[in-house]
Amino acid sequence: MKNCLVAQSGGPTAVINSSVVGVIQGNREVKYYNTVYGGINGIEGILQNKIINLSKLTNKEIKLLKYTPSSSLGSCRYKMKDFTINDDDYLKLFEILDKLDVQTMFYIGGNDSMDTVGKLSEYAKLNGIDKQIIGIPKTIDNDLFYTDHTPGYGSAAKYITTVALETYLDSSVYTNNGIFILETMGRDTGWLAASTVLAKLNGESVVDFIYLPEVQFSKQQFVEDVKSRFKENNKVYIVASEGLKDKTGKYVFDTSSSNKHDGFSHVQLGGVGNYLKNLIIDNDITTRVKVLELGVTQRCAMHCVSEIDIEEAEMVGKEAVKYSIEGHTGLMIGLNRLQNSPYKAETIMIQASKVANNIKYFPSSWITPEGNNVTEEAIEYMEPLIMGASCTNIENKLSEFIQLCV
Amino acid sequence: MKNCLVAQSGGPTAVINSSVVGVIQGNREVKYYNTVYGGINGIEGILQNKIINLSKLTNKEIKLLKYTPSSSLGSCRYKMKDFTINDDDYLKLFEILDKLDVQTMFYIGGNDSMDTVGKLSEYAKLNGIDKQIIGIPKTIDNDLFYTDHTPGYGSAAKYITTVALETYLDSSVYTNNGIFILETMGRDTGWLAASTVLAKLNGESVVDFIYLPEVQFSKQQFVEDVKSRFKENNKVYIVASEGLKDKTGKYVFDTSSSNKHDGFSHVQLGGVGNYLKNLIIDNDITTRVKVLELGVTQRCAMHCVSEIDIEEAEMVGKEAVKYSIEGHTGLMIGLNRLQNSPYKAETIMIQASKVANNIKYFPSSWITPEGNNVTEEAIEYMEPLIMGASCTNIENKLSEFIQLCV
Repeated sequence: MKNCLVAQSGGPTAVINSSVVGVIQGNREVKYYNTVYGGINGIEGILQNKIINLSKLTNKEIKLLKYTPSSSLGSCRYKMKDFTINDDDYLKLFEILDKLDVQTMFYIGGNDSMDTVGKLSEYAKLNGIDKQIIGIPKTIDNDLFYTDHTPGYGSAAKYITTVALETYLDSSVYTNNGIFILETMGRDTGWLAASTVLAKLNGESVVDFIYLPEVQFSKQQFVEDVKSRFKENNKVYIVASEGLKDKTGKYVFDTSSSNKHDGFSHVQLGGVGNYLKNLIIDNDITTRVKVLELGVTQRCAMHCVSEIDIEEAEMVGKEAVKYSIEGHTGLMIGLNRLQNSPYKAETIMIQASKVANNIKYFPSSWITPEGNNVTEEAIEYMEPLIMGASCTNIENKLSEFIQLCV
Repeated sequence: MKNCLVAQSGGPTAVINSSVVGVIQGNREVKYYNTVYGGINGIEGILQNKIINLSKLTNKEIKLLKYTPSSSLGSCRYKMKDFTINDDDYLKLFEILDKLDVQTMFYIGGNDSMDTVGKLSEYAKLNGIDKQIIGIPKTIDNDLFYTDHTPGYGSAAKYITTVALETYLDSSVYTNNGIFILETMGRDTGWLAASTVLAKLNGESVVDFIYLPEVQFSKQQFVEDVKSRFKENNKVYIVASEGLKDKTGKYVFDTSSSNKHDGFSHVQLGGVGNYLKNLIIDNDITTRVKVLELGVTQRCAMHCVSEIDIEEAEMVGKEAVKYSIEGHTGLMIGLNRLQNSPYKAETIMIQASKVANNIKYFPSSWITPEGNNVTEEAIEYMEPLIMGASCTNIENKLSEFIQLCV
């Protein structure tokens, strides 16, 4: 009997460990692989032989793992070189997998991780290496192509939307209410910001305006939007994605003061909220402006997880084992929505290399003509994904979490 | 039969509406007052005759109100003048209460609201006005004297601590982990920051250092603390209260750029996290520093409420009705802890004017000798207050909330 290995890559999500649990449980059901190994810190750690045995976990530990947010196997942002230029990492990786008798490597991640899955499987095929590489999707950004949505998105959306509703109430208590700006993650896409349309009181959305990176940001339009709504209601609730861009395609927030880049040359953003606050003040609308930047809480708020999301994260892990038994490689497990009420989805196979270098933008047809909110169709798409509160391991006080590597 | 009126003042909390529910339910049990009125926007709105009838609420609405965060009756930061100088507001207020046949006014708030309770009851006594004014405590800051703790604190502490635990996991996934700084509310006292000591994995606190306003902040000590811990672990998790002060008693964060004040001449803070980040970078410890400023989420996170807290918030409201029937006035309902396990508390009467101008600081005996963490005794005090997850009104997707005034 052969073994398999699972690892995590890229930014964490609240439910990324549920996909690890899916691989473990999927294999327990069919007993196909002898041992399920866990690679620590993704490709980067595997190349350094940082590997643990996940088959030893007890049922209690597996349950804890399912409800522990963030990447318990650690993560990396390691870019595989083009193997036609330098295949050192490829040789080393397959040697390590070989020594452990690993037949299949499951890699949980987003676009960049699917790039790794595509390259590794391609290299194996070209060099007659009988090993399978299978991608399992995760990203709070929901920006992977060919899949209806990605595990991690629903929980992030649920947390952001819950906070939007609660802070709306908080920001409405005085007679002299000001303007509230909620800044969400979303470098290139507005899926997270858009989800706040779901925050409703008496059936009405509480958010006045939602600004997405997909819509070219116009200072003038923004000032007009906010000025007239503030005049009307004496308060305005604004949601803005961190990745707002101007008509030249440049981020509106000046990043010159923090010119850091991560391993994939992504610009590190933040500060759009304060940028908009200054616009409001400079245009004499009001000085009473509050900004809330949710930061990393968006990707680890297990305490506000979506049940649909955490169960689907486990499902894609389980199904990945099933697809691997059929001999597939170089693919990513995707989700195909079958119906909305009751919500139902199935898994599908998608070529990982096709996912790798694509970005799924928020559809322009789901954005209102004014470009400052989203449509009913978007609500229908997003609503099922935040459904259900899951039983986290709250035993009297705080959630109980597990650590696999320290 | 006479009537009563309840109103809310100061900053909201997640459970402040539960105290309104306590007054309504307390009266329903004994049927002492004919009608329970709700004053909108505290004293400020009552003076403008903004008053609604809370006795008309259905059982379903009362349940929704209990689990709706923030001040549903609206709030104010209205400072009553000294009546020996100008008693216009006093005359007007008692006239309005008289017209509605209100015998007792319940005022839910913190120090400043207890100042109002003290002044109003004193004025009534001196002028032979047969009306009672009773204070019901609320504040996430936990800084009211003579009460073991304040409703609102436990839920804020539970949310902050949960986020600390989750973001600790999020900030530990890479091989090259940086430094994480969590900035909590707490202008003068460190109760909220201190609570993060409760965030534990495998029985060990995940927070390395907790800096409180009660300890004179030393740049040099801070840099030494962080430098040595970072060298040791390659990561540091820091919690800092917004109100850190230097040896001259000035806030360490320069507020000169945002010289706004609220009605009570409190300096509007924020920015301590970024101040500490710059100290770390300027002292060449690392450039990988993340700051999370929780902002107003700390005072409205119903989705992470403490069951003990929400039940006690209702209890002080109910007991306020009981004490009012006994004829008391000018007092605040306090909490007296009877035992820790199982946790048990009872209500007590405290003179409101004594509470008004006092601040209960975090005890110096509960701070470690190094001044950068808190003791086991503090844990024993705080732990029971975050116990229990309450059933919020999550019906399939988001919590359902009620609005009393729009």
